Amino acid sequence: MFRVAVAGATGAVGGVMIRVLEERGFPVSELRPLASERSEGRELDYLGKPCRVRRLDEDAFEGIDIALFSAGSPRAKAFAPAAVEAGAVVIDNSSAFRMDPVVPLVVPEVNEEAIAGHSGIIANPNCVAAPLVVALKPIADAVGLERVVLSSYQSVSGTGAAAIDELRAQTAGALAGSEPEPEVYPHPIAFNVLPHIDTFGDDGYTGEETKVANETRKMMGLPDLRVSATCVRVPVYYGHSESVQIETTERLTAEQARNLLMGAPGLVVIDEPGLNRYPLARDAAGRDEVFVGRIREDSSHPRGLALWIVADNLRKGAATNAVQIAESLVTKGWL
Amino acid sequence: MFRVAVAGATGAVGGVMIRVLEERGFPVSELRPLASERSEGRELDYLGKPCRVRRLDEDAFEGIDIALFSAGSPRAKAFAPAAVEAGAVVIDNSSAFRMDPVVPLVVPEVNEEAIAGHSGIIANPNCVAAPLVVALKPIADAVGLERVVLSSYQSVSGTGAAAIDELRAQTAGALAGSEPEPEVYPHPIAFNVLPHIDTFGDDGYTGEETKVANETRKMMGLPDLRVSATCVRVPVYYGHSESVQIETTERLTAEQARNLLMGAPGLVVIDEPGLNRYPLARDAAGRDEVFVGRIREDSSHPRGLALWIVADNLRKGAATNAVQIAESLVTKGWL
Repeated sequence: MFRVAVAGATGAVGGVMIRVLEERGFPVSELRPLASERSEGRELDYLGKPCRVRRLDEDAFEGIDIALFSAGSPRAKAFAPAAVEAGAVVIDNSSAFRMDPVVPLVVPEVNEEAIAGHSGIIANPNCVAAPLVVALKPIADAVGLERVVLSSYQSVSGTGAAAIDELRAQTAGALAGSEPEPEVYPHPIAFNVLPHIDTFGDDGYTGEETKVANETRKMMGLPDLRVSATCVRVPVYYGHSESVQIETTERLTAEQARNLLMGAPGLVVIDEPGLNRYPLARDAAGRDEVFVGRIREDSSHPRGLALWIVADNLRKGAATNAVQIAESLVTKGWL
Repeated sequence: MFRVAVAGATGAVGGVMIRVLEERGFPVSELRPLASERSEGRELDYLGKPCRVRRLDEDAFEGIDIALFSAGSPRAKAFAPAAVEAGAVVIDNSSAFRMDPVVPLVVPEVNEEAIAGHSGIIANPNCVAAPLVVALKPIADAVGLERVVLSSYQSVSGTGAAAIDELRAQTAGALAGSEPEPEVYPHPIAFNVLPHIDTFGDDGYTGEETKVANETRKMMGLPDLRVSATCVRVPVYYGHSESVQIETTERLTAEQARNLLMGAPGLVVIDEPGLNRYPLARDAAGRDEVFVGRIREDSSHPRGLALWIVADNLRKGAATNAVQIAESLVTKGWL
């Protein structure tokens, strides 16, 4: 049994981390929810029992074996070293350490063995990159992968609890004819789409888009993979969808790709479009798997395939993947 | 002055056609709204005066000079020949005639001269293809265009008035905790995205996606242009957004592309991402122009560019473009 801290326990991802620990029966001897001073003393439910939130500070990790962090980059940088110092292994959902060459960035279905080399911190990938690599790894292994072009349809829960509230309040306001001013996003998200997630770089790509590219390369072990992403926020609560076009080294037919993906770990193929069956954000919400469909040969490239990938961004895109990393640590003896 | 019929006048696009005729001061001596039997006798407003809806039948076009059709493919096929027989020039918004080699398919900013060769019917393009070619034509002319990969974010008004009602009712129901069953779409559209517009072909592409490819090739005069589209419905009322990646023949920098597009007809460049300025569906609603932004060099291709294109699907994607074709007919003496 393990003593598990969840840093950022009162946030959207932190809350799901606790649910996923319960659902998957992770062997927890003590759950220690941590949050900012504002939430100190609040009680969260864990396996039907109240569990008091402690303040996230340098002394919060005494005796902890595994610390799941979903507290943002600044707090990860501030407190992850203290957690490691106290003897915990940190699994961090922020982008703080993802591209650090000594930190493994892991989706267990794709590169579980990278966990073995950790030095106390393991990074959990971006919520677009995680489902993407689950779907692309079997293809890359089978026929080689050269290029990925992606446009995303990302739900507001990826931004956090305040964004969920903003979408709800703004939508209700729009229906009633008196819409509140946007606060979380720079523009209204109700009945709109925003081609803007994270801040813009000099190359015109956003931080989110650059993360998708860099993290995909790192996890796939393909440093030269060419990736271009356009990341877009849509008025959906839960579930990120991705329109993906890839170029492989050897040609793969749609049927070959479908067969390859049907047997792949963590993936569910839903691809009977004539029966109106394809992955949908609302169906993926609350599910741990990655869903893929609309698999077709790209009419614009002889070695191209188009795919539609959907996953619950709070689960496979965040909490579930973090708990899976914790499971690997435990079952493989890498703790 | 011209006698103008609007077939499908009580639909979402037909209504906007009448508004655009008013707004642009088209020289109308008689406006004749036509619709199915169900709407016969209804009164529509035109320039502040009531205008009675007549039944769309073979005898409805007597004396008409220009017939704007937005009544769907079956009615276009049934009644456009009668309108031509009666001496009218038909501008049809359905897909019925678009790929007919003797029918010009026109966006005036792109291939106005094709109108000259009409034999009575001119086709108005698909609502994704029309904005796309406005943005791509200046680039194709300057440096050549080889490939287009597109993912769309299409509003429900593209489906019609019933879909606007469905989104509104479903959203209100979802907020109140009792969501009505979907009727227009096969799945809920409220707080969801649907990778399904039109019916699926054997190649896995939808009819909508195939239209975007074929119509783009035809209007650009580039029969070998490689195009792949993924068309997706989003919970937005008005305005289609498009994430577009192109490969040009000669390299074009983002800055060169921006300068090229800033002077182009029908286009507005909104591209100051650091100031949160980029095209948005809600801002484009009610506007006649095509908006383009997020112009950047594609990090995955040496001659690639990424663009974000937005237009009001009922206007530049339908009604405005049809009225512009009517204007060309009149001003160039091609009637």
